[in-house]
Amino acid sequence: PSLSLSLPRPEGPWVTFWMTNMATSVCLLMPDLFPPVSISQAQPGPATSLSKKTIHHYDSHSLAHSHVLASPTSTIQIKSHRGAWLINCVTFPLPGEGPEQQLLKPNEWSYCDYFWTDKKDPQGTTSVAGFEVLLQKQLKGKQMQKEMAEFIHERIKIEEEYAKNLSKLSLSPLAAQEEGTLGEAWTQLKKSLHDEAEVHLKFSNKLHSEVEKPLLTFRGDNFKKDLKKYDHHIADLRKQLASRYASVEKARKALADRQKDLEVKTQQLEIKLSNKTEEDIKKARRKSTQAGDDLMRCVDLYNQTQSKWFEEMVTTSMELEKLEVDRIEWIQQHLRQYTTLRHETDMFNQSTVEPVDQLLQSVDPAKDRELWVKEHKTGEVRPVDMDI
Amino acid sequence: PSLSLSLPRPEGPWVTFWMTNMATSVCLLMPDLFPPVSISQAQPGPATSLSKKTIHHYDSHSLAHSHVLASPTSTIQIKSHRGAWLINCVTFPLPGEGPEQQLLKPNEWSYCDYFWTDKKDPQGTTSVAGFEVLLQKQLKGKQMQKEMAEFIHERIKIEEEYAKNLSKLSLSPLAAQEEGTLGEAWTQLKKSLHDEAEVHLKFSNKLHSEVEKPLLTFRGDNFKKDLKKYDHHIADLRKQLASRYASVEKARKALADRQKDLEVKTQQLEIKLSNKTEEDIKKARRKSTQAGDDLMRCVDLYNQTQSKWFEEMVTTSMELEKLEVDRIEWIQQHLRQYTTLRHETDMFNQSTVEPVDQLLQSVDPAKDRELWVKEHKTGEVRPVDMDI
Repeated sequence: PSLSLSLPRPEGPWVTFWMTNMATSVCLLMPDLFPPVSISQAQPGPATSLSKKTIHHYDSHSLAHSHVLASPTSTIQIKSHRGAWLINCVTFPLPGEGPEQQLLKPNEWSYCDYFWTDKKDPQGTTSVAGFEVLLQKQLKGKQMQKEMAEFIHERIKIEEEYAKNLSKLSLSPLAAQEEGTLGEAWTQLKKSLHDEAEVHLKFSNKLHSEVEKPLLTFRGDNFKKDLKKYDHHIADLRKQLASRYASVEKARKALADRQKDLEVKTQQLEIKLSNKTEEDIKKARRKSTQAGDDLMRCVDLYNQTQSKWFEEMVTTSMELEKLEVDRIEWIQQHLRQYTTLRHETDMFNQSTVEPVDQLLQSVDPAKDRELWVKEHKTGEVRPVDMDI
Repeated sequence: PSLSLSLPRPEGPWVTFWMTNMATSVCLLMPDLFPPVSISQAQPGPATSLSKKTIHHYDSHSLAHSHVLASPTSTIQIKSHRGAWLINCVTFPLPGEGPEQQLLKPNEWSYCDYFWTDKKDPQGTTSVAGFEVLLQKQLKGKQMQKEMAEFIHERIKIEEEYAKNLSKLSLSPLAAQEEGTLGEAWTQLKKSLHDEAEVHLKFSNKLHSEVEKPLLTFRGDNFKKDLKKYDHHIADLRKQLASRYASVEKARKALADRQKDLEVKTQQLEIKLSNKTEEDIKKARRKSTQAGDDLMRCVDLYNQTQSKWFEEMVTTSMELEKLEVDRIEWIQQHLRQYTTLRHETDMFNQSTVEPVDQLLQSVDPAKDRELWVKEHKTGEVRPVDMDI
């Protein structure tokens, strides 16, 4: 069956999840963990009340972690900024910072809970998105399914060869001239090889239609296309996230410049260097406020994209999770069909021997002598003495 | 087992049979059919009382029969002589002549009752002794036994080939990277092919030791030697019988000459041709009587040889009959062993699938996801909104 991009059937709190933005949804899922205050903290807005605390944590934690994660060869970009750090432009809370998180689907080992971070690829040179790991698993599963079909195909060829040899031998003329009841039993024994051959041929045919073919055709070419769609969709969101992060950095720098300018002008006013400074300060303050608004907008856009990516990650990883369950159950079902066919084969094989057993039961040397003597006797009149 | 020339264990009347001459023995077997008078008729002695009747039957029957049996190309020698006819020097009663014969072993279709006459060989050119027909049957039986062993050998080769292919496939790396409970089931499925191979290998080994070998070694080279001994023994008696028959003919002619001579001399006496004839007649009568005694002796020797041949024919044909019964039962027994091994094979084959069934039962997609996620997860900390 081809693969659809539709979302998995929503259940319970998920219904609302998809309708709202990430933070709120998480809050809906576990309100006790995300009290309103923590949400407001997460909302864009003047970073006043918490800034000091944030910087403190910035010093103590994020550097250490940057050191751990950012190996010299890795291209994983780790930055930190007040109360949070960024890995390849995704914002994570600093350890111990922010409200504790609970799994979205506890005790289910759901894909949607364990693949948020990018990791170094096996060679440790480039970074691999957690989502890529999920896609690799899907591709490997497809490959396993293909190789199982190959294995069954080889088994089919062995059965066909065996059947061919058996039915060829059953036609051999060896001991064809054996006579009587023994001859009949022998003929049936030879015939039974042909019956055995039929059983194994039937086995190989059913293996083909009921095991090999389903394994081979399960998830056609569409499957890999669909995986690519997922891949591009998520990757695009990551690119967008990166560009939005760049704008945030730019806006942050602009605001800093504006604040510095305002500061300078304010000092000039205190030492009364000019009388038209009053005007300059108003203008500088206006520009600084504007830069602050720009930064807020950029952060807001960034957070919107990250939320979008988050939702897609959850949706898609749960879709892939479902696909893997389907694959395992499909294979299980068809390997069961294999064992069923094997059992059938042994059963039918038994039955090919029974007619031979019966005719062997009724082998009778006396009967065979009678038949043979009747056909070959030369004369039953006994000689008598000659008289003169 | 090699073949002994010893007589079959005698039973009932047979005990005495072998101790006495043929006619008496037949009488012992069926006294009611061979009353003393008929025996005396069968005894050598002056052929007076029956000679006329005999000649009558000679005309009416034996010629007709001669015509039937003695085809122009056949070398079968058919002669007739008072109350009897001879086929290749063996004396048979004329049809309807002499006491009616009953089978030596009624309702048994025993070889000893049906192979007394020589017959034309299939090409109808030469004659084949009834005993040769029995020997041919033995040789054919030996050949059948050999061909059955060959057939089983072919089956063994097929099983070995099948087993080789199965265990080779079971070692294939196909889908070896399948993981978790599904991976375990798959590994067991592949292993089960190796178990199947073992079952078929065991089958072929047992076929070799318990069916092929016994069929092949049953009755070694000694067997044909023993048959030759039988053959020569019986053939020699037939040669002796022929030469004794020749002596009878010679003596019969001599007697006829003597009787003619006596007749002439008697006539000469009547017409008083000479006076010393009295003496000549005495002498001629003496010589005639002597020739009569010679003939009696020759006929007696002939009958002794024929009796000896008769006894050997009965003894040996019963021995061959026993050999054929043994052969059929031996083959029956070993073909039964074949079917037993086939049943075993199907049974053991069944058991190779059960461990696969069990592991397929316990395939669990959730369990497999847990195992895989534990090994490959990249990070479970979810992203949070960036603040300014």
